[in-house]
Amino acid sequence: MTKKRVALIGLGSMGGGMARVLVKAGFAVNGFDVDPAREAEFAKESGEPADPAAIGEADIVVVVVVNAAQTEDVLFGGGRFGETGIVGALKADAVVVSCATVSPDFARAMAERVGADRYLDAPISGGSVRAASGELSVLASGTPEAFRRADPAIEAMSANLFRLGDAAGIGSAMKVVNQLLAGVHIAAAAEAITFGMSQGLEPGQIVSVINDCAGNSWMLQNRGPHIRDGDYTPHSAVDIFVKDLGLVEDIARDARFAAPIAGAALQQFLAASGSGLGREDDAAVAKVYARNAGLTLPGDDA
Amino acid sequence: MTKKRVALIGLGSMGGGMARVLVKAGFAVNGFDVDPAREAEFAKESGEPADPAAIGEADIVVVVVVNAAQTEDVLFGGGRFGETGIVGALKADAVVVSCATVSPDFARAMAERVGADRYLDAPISGGSVRAASGELSVLASGTPEAFRRADPAIEAMSANLFRLGDAAGIGSAMKVVNQLLAGVHIAAAAEAITFGMSQGLEPGQIVSVINDCAGNSWMLQNRGPHIRDGDYTPHSAVDIFVKDLGLVEDIARDARFAAPIAGAALQQFLAASGSGLGREDDAAVAKVYARNAGLTLPGDDA
Repeated sequence: MTKKRVALIGLGSMGGGMARVLVKAGFAVNGFDVDPAREAEFAKESGEPADPAAIGEADIVVVVVVNAAQTEDVLFGGGRFGETGIVGALKADAVVVSCATVSPDFARAMAERVGADRYLDAPISGGSVRAASGELSVLASGTPEAFRRADPAIEAMSANLFRLGDAAGIGSAMKVVNQLLAGVHIAAAAEAITFGMSQGLEPGQIVSVINDCAGNSWMLQNRGPHIRDGDYTPHSAVDIFVKDLGLVEDIARDARFAAPIAGAALQQFLAASGSGLGREDDAAVAKVYARNAGLTLPGDDA
Repeated sequence: MTKKRVALIGLGSMGGGMARVLVKAGFAVNGFDVDPAREAEFAKESGEPADPAAIGEADIVVVVVVNAAQTEDVLFGGGRFGETGIVGALKADAVVVSCATVSPDFARAMAERVGADRYLDAPISGGSVRAASGELSVLASGTPEAFRRADPAIEAMSANLFRLGDAAGIGSAMKVVNQLLAGVHIAAAAEAITFGMSQGLEPGQIVSVINDCAGNSWMLQNRGPHIRDGDYTPHSAVDIFVKDLGLVEDIARDARFAAPIAGAALQQFLAASGSGLGREDDAAVAKVYARNAGLTLPGDDA
């Protein structure tokens, strides 16, 4: 039996790990990226060329780009994948696994244009470390046939595969709900830690004590130590939440849904990005709070 | 050896459970409350009268009232405990265990007036169920001598006893940090669940899926099911967070600390309280979001 063929578009911190996981799982993987160096490196590792002609032979096309605009461009936008984008070249029984964080309406529109059985709405969560170990959470929805086609690849890439429903849009809705909470919780963790500092507490003590209290969140435990240690190496950058909370607010506005807490958190990430912290770890939103309150964060004593 | 004597002021949903835990643990407990019926019921159970003269014999006085004003009134305010409040009647080697959520400055001022070795700053967390089972979290600070005096009682009442430092104020600072996070996370859970509903998701599905995602919080898992089930029986009421996030904002204002996310959450609890939901479970803040978005919550189909 020949190997299943996957084309993976977007070899960044998430897609690069996912592509390598798929190679290890036994797929033939053609990897594509706007960065020729990344593309060449992966082609060398995988033994499969970054040849657009491979799209026409792919069983599964995994699209791991940043947003809706890039997703649409890859699927329909022409350029190196031909005048009609990759969708024009797809086999009839192939499936597109779309992983970017997008609005539910966008996911539904793509499924309609690509074909419901050829499109799985499959945003991912978990960060680059879990992408590289095949332990992502995938928030997926689509027709049973779309799942059937995509299953071998998404099973290989994920530790938690949520099958959320039989139409595109449900997966993306859950992803934006998660991003609302994640963004709010990061900013709230930064607000609480710096507020505690203004009252004489140490960041490490806060993270450790709240771990056993009702104020705990996954993000406080994950990002709090970055603030405690003064380490803003970007695991996920401030600008990701400018984008994702911006998407939340765009969707909310269209739905006439008032989301004041997500809005307040977005303003703090905007202040972080606008003051030059956009590419630092998202925990650097704490620097906005510290600056505004005249506080000195750990690692900032110089 | 005679039993240690505890006077416990405030036999409400928290204090009532704590008083009974102390009786079970072998203390002689005199219980006091503004509600004579509550007081009489407890005196019957404990076999110890609600006699103000007992204050002068107490080794430990546990004060479980709602806020700083009530705490100060009990300690110094006169009335049934005599012109000088209970502090004037205390034994020299007694200790006051102060459990209300108050500002760190207030806790420091009380320790100074009562005497540092006679005052333990000991706000509690965990809710009425854990109060009744002796499994509270206690966020305590005070002198080693204040701890020594209070230890037998606070060990009996708690599952997690945090010894946060050797001066009053640190415990209260940690408690307000926890309340900032708890209040924000409840309102954020309500915002996220109703936002997801506006995008076609079910509340129960959101609570269950986010449990395994980075957007999770203790409050989403604890209060989310109240929204899913349409059950607003008050475990902790909306008005508690009007009070506690109000306290956060008061402390923040005094410290010139900008806390926009806590502020946004406070506005949502104020809208809930102002529209008649103050005594419902704090998860009823979801009703503000639902009303503003024209959504129908579970249990509200009639």
